[in-house]
Amino acid sequence: MEFKALEKVGVDRLLSSFGRRIYLPQGIFYWSGKAKKDADINATIGTARAKKSAIYGDNDDSAITCHLPSIKEHFPKMGSEDIFPYCPIPGHPGFREAWKKYILYKAGDQAEAINEHLTLPVASSGITGGLHIILKLFADENEPVISPEKRWENYDTILCMNIGARFHSFVFFKDGKFNTQGLMKALQEVWAERDKAIVILNFPNNPTGYMPSAEEMEEVREELLKAVDETGKTVILIFDDAYEGYVYDDQAMKRSPFYDFVNIDDRIFPIKIDGIAKELLWYGGRIGMITFGLPQAWLNEVPLAQLEKELENKVSGVTRSSDSNYNLVTQRIVAKALEDLPRMMAERQKTIEVLKERYRVWAAEAAKFDRKLLYADPSQAGFFAFVNVLGAHAEKVAETLLMKYKVGTVPDVNAEEGINGIRVAFCSVEAADIPRLCECLVKAVKDEQA
Amino acid sequence: MEFKALEKVGVDRLLSSFGRRIYLPQGIFYWSGKAKKDADINATIGTARAKKSAIYGDNDDSAITCHLPSIKEHFPKMGSEDIFPYCPIPGHPGFREAWKKYILYKAGDQAEAINEHLTLPVASSGITGGLHIILKLFADENEPVISPEKRWENYDTILCMNIGARFHSFVFFKDGKFNTQGLMKALQEVWAERDKAIVILNFPNNPTGYMPSAEEMEEVREELLKAVDETGKTVILIFDDAYEGYVYDDQAMKRSPFYDFVNIDDRIFPIKIDGIAKELLWYGGRIGMITFGLPQAWLNEVPLAQLEKELENKVSGVTRSSDSNYNLVTQRIVAKALEDLPRMMAERQKTIEVLKERYRVWAAEAAKFDRKLLYADPSQAGFFAFVNVLGAHAEKVAETLLMKYKVGTVPDVNAEEGINGIRVAFCSVEAADIPRLCECLVKAVKDEQA
Repeated sequence: MEFKALEKVGVDRLLSSFGRRIYLPQGIFYWSGKAKKDADINATIGTARAKKSAIYGDNDDSAITCHLPSIKEHFPKMGSEDIFPYCPIPGHPGFREAWKKYILYKAGDQAEAINEHLTLPVASSGITGGLHIILKLFADENEPVISPEKRWENYDTILCMNIGARFHSFVFFKDGKFNTQGLMKALQEVWAERDKAIVILNFPNNPTGYMPSAEEMEEVREELLKAVDETGKTVILIFDDAYEGYVYDDQAMKRSPFYDFVNIDDRIFPIKIDGIAKELLWYGGRIGMITFGLPQAWLNEVPLAQLEKELENKVSGVTRSSDSNYNLVTQRIVAKALEDLPRMMAERQKTIEVLKERYRVWAAEAAKFDRKLLYADPSQAGFFAFVNVLGAHAEKVAETLLMKYKVGTVPDVNAEEGINGIRVAFCSVEAADIPRLCECLVKAVKDEQA
Repeated sequence: MEFKALEKVGVDRLLSSFGRRIYLPQGIFYWSGKAKKDADINATIGTARAKKSAIYGDNDDSAITCHLPSIKEHFPKMGSEDIFPYCPIPGHPGFREAWKKYILYKAGDQAEAINEHLTLPVASSGITGGLHIILKLFADENEPVISPEKRWENYDTILCMNIGARFHSFVFFKDGKFNTQGLMKALQEVWAERDKAIVILNFPNNPTGYMPSAEEMEEVREELLKAVDETGKTVILIFDDAYEGYVYDDQAMKRSPFYDFVNIDDRIFPIKIDGIAKELLWYGGRIGMITFGLPQAWLNEVPLAQLEKELENKVSGVTRSSDSNYNLVTQRIVAKALEDLPRMMAERQKTIEVLKERYRVWAAEAAKFDRKLLYADPSQAGFFAFVNVLGAHAEKVAETLLMKYKVGTVPDVNAEEGINGIRVAFCSVEAADIPRLCECLVKAVKDEQA
């Protein structure tokens, strides 16, 4: 496999040494693809196929994937070929098309402008899998990746422990807003030693629940455009959009900032990572999607289809060499659910309303916190809120909160990053319980300060 | 996380540098585990949970994972909690127990002897995922891993392209049998430069369909015992048992050789990798299992539970940092199917009979091949057979076979390894078509020899 398009637009220089090495060997796929087109007898497929009658003892001579009726009976509405065969490595075509349509639906008034700049989404093992693939393709060992200091703990497991790279953090908030200057400073620091920088942004955020306003993101956009222009350096912007759509405050952006960073400069390469876990409330389904935003300057050099093919091959190389491919029936069912988008959105709205009410109660209670004891980070969205603890060790507070007051939370303490707080998953607490939760939280801090 | 048990029995010295680094951070899991036990209000869980009535508008106040009815309706026989929540990282407990029982069932008269030496199986993304995890944990960059030269092409993608290690091959057959001496020579070559060796064995084999006799494996066992005794070196024996159970010849072993290598020496560390793809004919389900066989000498040093916990933590560290966890509903459904093992086995037998008949026709036809043109490797089992091509380039033969005779196959050519042949997936060809397939194969070789 040659990667001439990636070379032509300079993406090859953004890849890690692993990213340059990996590709999907054509072998079996090349020959089974050819056979599908030209063969009367197809002896390329490594799955047992037979006449349906051989499995069910009926008179149906149609060819199917041999399977166990005791598994099939759990899927009365699905055909055997929607359940049992291997899924194509980059994902089921119908699912990928359906997810792209869904992305364009979410993009709203940006849809038309970015449509021709998006690749067909490629499947992954959820958000974690999407991040793992993209970070492995782009981050070398010891390479710094920029992120706010408050981030999902699994980022560190993926990037530091697995890939052997590291985080270059900046402080999330400044004056209650997203710290654009912190991000820009981090970028300059990274660019001082290399030509590219990788940034992960996650809005709505885990753990803070923060969702910026359109104005805040416009500022990031402008600063970024200015910076790449002045430095001639490149930035890969990874959007972890796990919680897209769960926004409860009218001042905050309703959609991911991703759409506003597509095709704004040939030195800004946005990558969107989605997951069905939160967006479609199917945590155990384990499907994510990776979508690349390609600037016009690249498309002037090579057609979208060619760049898409090469990027898909790189991603598929990682998939083939670690997971092979992803659960088929989940992709088929999600594609079906997305076919009736109004129904799906109406169903999900019920959960959003439940979370919005919990958020409302939480925000009202958190506003009363005594700032000598604790204070909540600004939040508008998502599944979590984050409380900073003063004058006590947050782990001890969480311990007291659990053992004395029977309230379970997750503490986050990182002296180096200046973090000493508690993540509250209001997503799993009834609104009626939130005032007591807050009351106990305050008591536990007092107990530990004493 | 400390790994005192692994240190005590010397497994830490077998790990790759990545394997020594990786672990599953306790963070969220530690606190959510504690909360499950002690909390009245649990704000640790990052999934939206609510009363069922909030989603369905009924009067049911039981707490559920919020989900979309348009997804749920595809699983009328499953409860929402069997479909939507995250699965524990090492797999669903019920599924893991069910798979261990299934392993012991397959072990037959060895079950009792090995029962106390097996860890609870840990889930992976199929066989590929299991191999990826184990090779990443044990094989360092550039480290040689021993395998016959004829092997599933994805081994090379996983080991060489992804992990950056390499294969140390030996020739699969000698006088129509498994080349034990070739394996032993490869071991000595690898041991000459290091204290441990990693071997992958795959019976029934892809691509050859070979399944050794009990006597052949007994020879391997004796040679291996002698060799570790003489050298003081260690061997990790990875059994890729993807095709276990698909055996059509009475002279061949009916079960995986794995069981006969458990607890035979404290320097022989067998690891079993299973998958539901072929064993339960659910290719698109993407679940594999990793099971460690622990020798008694190790269990004299530390209890099984402690070793199991540390090995599970290492595997879970890889999972958490690349995939997070695996599809829940697949694990739940497979556990249900395994509950009624007689039914499951009877259902699968229908597919085995179909394949056995195809194998019978294939073997009869292949016996007639003119050895000046081509010859089949010995085969007794599995989904594939392998034909060695003489006097012509196998890729060209496959091309002619497809374009002129409309028969699709997968060629395998590797000059360095001395491979020039064609893999025939008889698993997907009706028995009635196999004579024509063989006839065309012979014609295509003749065409290309000319």
